[in-house]
Amino acid sequence: MRAEIISVGTEILLGEIQDTNSCFLASRLPALGIDLYFISVVGDNFDRLQQTIKQAFQRSDLLLITGGLGPTDDDLTREAIAAVLGERPYVDEALAQALRNLFTSRGLPFPERNLKQAWLIPSATAIPNPRGTAPGWWVEKEGRIIVALPGPPHEMEPMWEEEVAPRLRKRAQGQVLVTRTLKTIGLGEGQVDEMLSDLARSSNPTLAVYAKPDGVYVRLAAKAMGEGIAWDLIRPVEEEVRQRLGPHIWGVDDESLEGVVGRLLKERALTLAVMESFTGGLLANTITDVPGSSTYFLAGYVAYQPEAKIALGVDPKVIEMHGVVSPEVAAAMAQAARQRAGAHIGIGTTGVAGPDPLEGKPPGTSHIGLDFLGNIRTTSYQFYQGRLAAKRRGVTVALALLWRALTGRL
Amino acid sequence: MRAEIISVGTEILLGEIQDTNSCFLASRLPALGIDLYFISVVGDNFDRLQQTIKQAFQRSDLLLITGGLGPTDDDLTREAIAAVLGERPYVDEALAQALRNLFTSRGLPFPERNLKQAWLIPSATAIPNPRGTAPGWWVEKEGRIIVALPGPPHEMEPMWEEEVAPRLRKRAQGQVLVTRTLKTIGLGEGQVDEMLSDLARSSNPTLAVYAKPDGVYVRLAAKAMGEGIAWDLIRPVEEEVRQRLGPHIWGVDDESLEGVVGRLLKERALTLAVMESFTGGLLANTITDVPGSSTYFLAGYVAYQPEAKIALGVDPKVIEMHGVVSPEVAAAMAQAARQRAGAHIGIGTTGVAGPDPLEGKPPGTSHIGLDFLGNIRTTSYQFYQGRLAAKRRGVTVALALLWRALTGRL
Repeated sequence: MRAEIISVGTEILLGEIQDTNSCFLASRLPALGIDLYFISVVGDNFDRLQQTIKQAFQRSDLLLITGGLGPTDDDLTREAIAAVLGERPYVDEALAQALRNLFTSRGLPFPERNLKQAWLIPSATAIPNPRGTAPGWWVEKEGRIIVALPGPPHEMEPMWEEEVAPRLRKRAQGQVLVTRTLKTIGLGEGQVDEMLSDLARSSNPTLAVYAKPDGVYVRLAAKAMGEGIAWDLIRPVEEEVRQRLGPHIWGVDDESLEGVVGRLLKERALTLAVMESFTGGLLANTITDVPGSSTYFLAGYVAYQPEAKIALGVDPKVIEMHGVVSPEVAAAMAQAARQRAGAHIGIGTTGVAGPDPLEGKPPGTSHIGLDFLGNIRTTSYQFYQGRLAAKRRGVTVALALLWRALTGRL
Repeated sequence: MRAEIISVGTEILLGEIQDTNSCFLASRLPALGIDLYFISVVGDNFDRLQQTIKQAFQRSDLLLITGGLGPTDDDLTREAIAAVLGERPYVDEALAQALRNLFTSRGLPFPERNLKQAWLIPSATAIPNPRGTAPGWWVEKEGRIIVALPGPPHEMEPMWEEEVAPRLRKRAQGQVLVTRTLKTIGLGEGQVDEMLSDLARSSNPTLAVYAKPDGVYVRLAAKAMGEGIAWDLIRPVEEEVRQRLGPHIWGVDDESLEGVVGRLLKERALTLAVMESFTGGLLANTITDVPGSSTYFLAGYVAYQPEAKIALGVDPKVIEMHGVVSPEVAAAMAQAARQRAGAHIGIGTTGVAGPDPLEGKPPGTSHIGLDFLGNIRTTSYQFYQGRLAAKRRGVTVALALLWRALTGRL
């Protein structure tokens, strides 16, 4: 089944909102065995909307349209679908009654212009929307399907999951696509490419290598007539990749470094404290994004200035001797964090977040220290793509260092 | 000038990455007087890419294409443009030499397949890309313009700002759209709507009200044949909105609360320290996203557990008497942060980030304390849409409280 997504809304074309609906829908189609060939964004303009729907109806089996189902004159999706199919909208009495009841239950008068949200055409049935006033349309004609859903994601996404995906799952006849992503750290993209070059020639599953902010990902994707068969294709290749990259793989699929590290800390009943300079609180913030992190994360300290570091237990002589941006200070910060918080593990970060240099060192100069049960390690690098990216990278490197310690890789 | 954006990449159609380039480009066009009618996403498939470019070339004056300029066989944007225009690519010797030099300077061998990044066609000139290996293409033919830029945003965005936007500014002939956004805090969307309802009936400038995570925005947009004329239309309406919403407006356009607060702290030579519980480091991290924040941000403490708070100076009796999730503890944390860091101002946050309740209090229970030169204020609320949103909202409320204190609104 060949699908096409159309997002409707002038505010997307003005760059005022990001069209996140298309990405959501696109990510849901491979597992249904539906191939997506095009995404189009078009404004609240009848002619261009009709033209876009008409073209999609000619070249695709399934049209997923989001937006343009509101009650105003600018909301033209129903009108455009009706025009493309040559059908006339009518007010569905059951839908109209439900809509009137909804307004009454909220103690609001019913605005007559909302009545167009009760429209149907002969080829359409309504898709219930318990979270808003606009039902969707499920349209079937000439062997093709058009699904129209409202634009607000908190209405659209549950309608997709509860109503549309189950119906499409029954219809889609094609091969399903199943993917497995293996996430690594400590190897470059080129290295991984080289280590897996023979496997990358396979066409089912395919193997692709991506560089991401938290390491290099290896993505396996298999197509087959059923999920089980697809997994059978993936399993031996995944096994082989794991053999080759083993010690570098820190997680799979949706896992995050902070989630994996948190699980390891919990399992081993270890506690953690951090002292941050150039990462400015992002390390603590990333660690505490994980639900339940309060059980192992004892304390975070953000100490930009030397005096603040000294007040938290960093030896002023170390700063004097090596400069505040140095591996020695990163180590001292890790140690001070651990001791001050009474934790098993401490992490320290010192560097130059930029944009200006510090102590004559360029932005991107970065030192991470780890005090793991009294054993101290540091890692240093220089890389700069802006202040926020520098903070982000510092956090990834710090979490990766901790992960390596927790898994005996240091 | 009628424009159309084409984003190229199978990973977008698979829902693996969000196409943020289109939103970036779309947001830049109104100020140039360029109307955007369509955005299309198409995969790394020669036929469909060619078909999409051909259609766009027929119906639009300006095509902005991102992605597909890499060195691999999957990168087909150059080939597709050449095919649509009926031209043959050739290796530009100057580009090839620059590319070889780039690899040499990085100490890498030059892979011959990268040579296609030195291609041009007769209608194209190269757009320099100082941050990557793929130059862009500026193509002019039959009165139409095609601009092809690489997909990575950190390469594409500066190329747009430095090379493409200036050239288009000279070409575009239409009405320009100028906008002014006034950012407020402390009023609901409905309230603002009501206070400005008469102004909202104006058609040039238009006035729109949006609820955002950091308050309610009022957006004025004027169209005219020149920027000066458009600003003349906006000015009196902006003045009127400022009259009505005055004390609630904290910033305009791209300003952030942390940036505005940072500027005020710097101007008044005041220093700040924070102690965070449920915001988990996000407050410190947000404050330190601002370049130069090291001059006023003295220290951040992340203290989840009662013992950590006590170790940092919170009176255990206050915790015992009121519970750790209480306005009193928020105030004590603010005071302890200020005193411990020797700062003028301290902020404390305590609450339930969730998903689980704490001390019998539901997720979203939030208390923010402010110690402003010894004067203590707290603010409390309960609102929950998930852990990360709870942290985010706590930070906004804390910064808004500080902003009100700094501007004499408390």
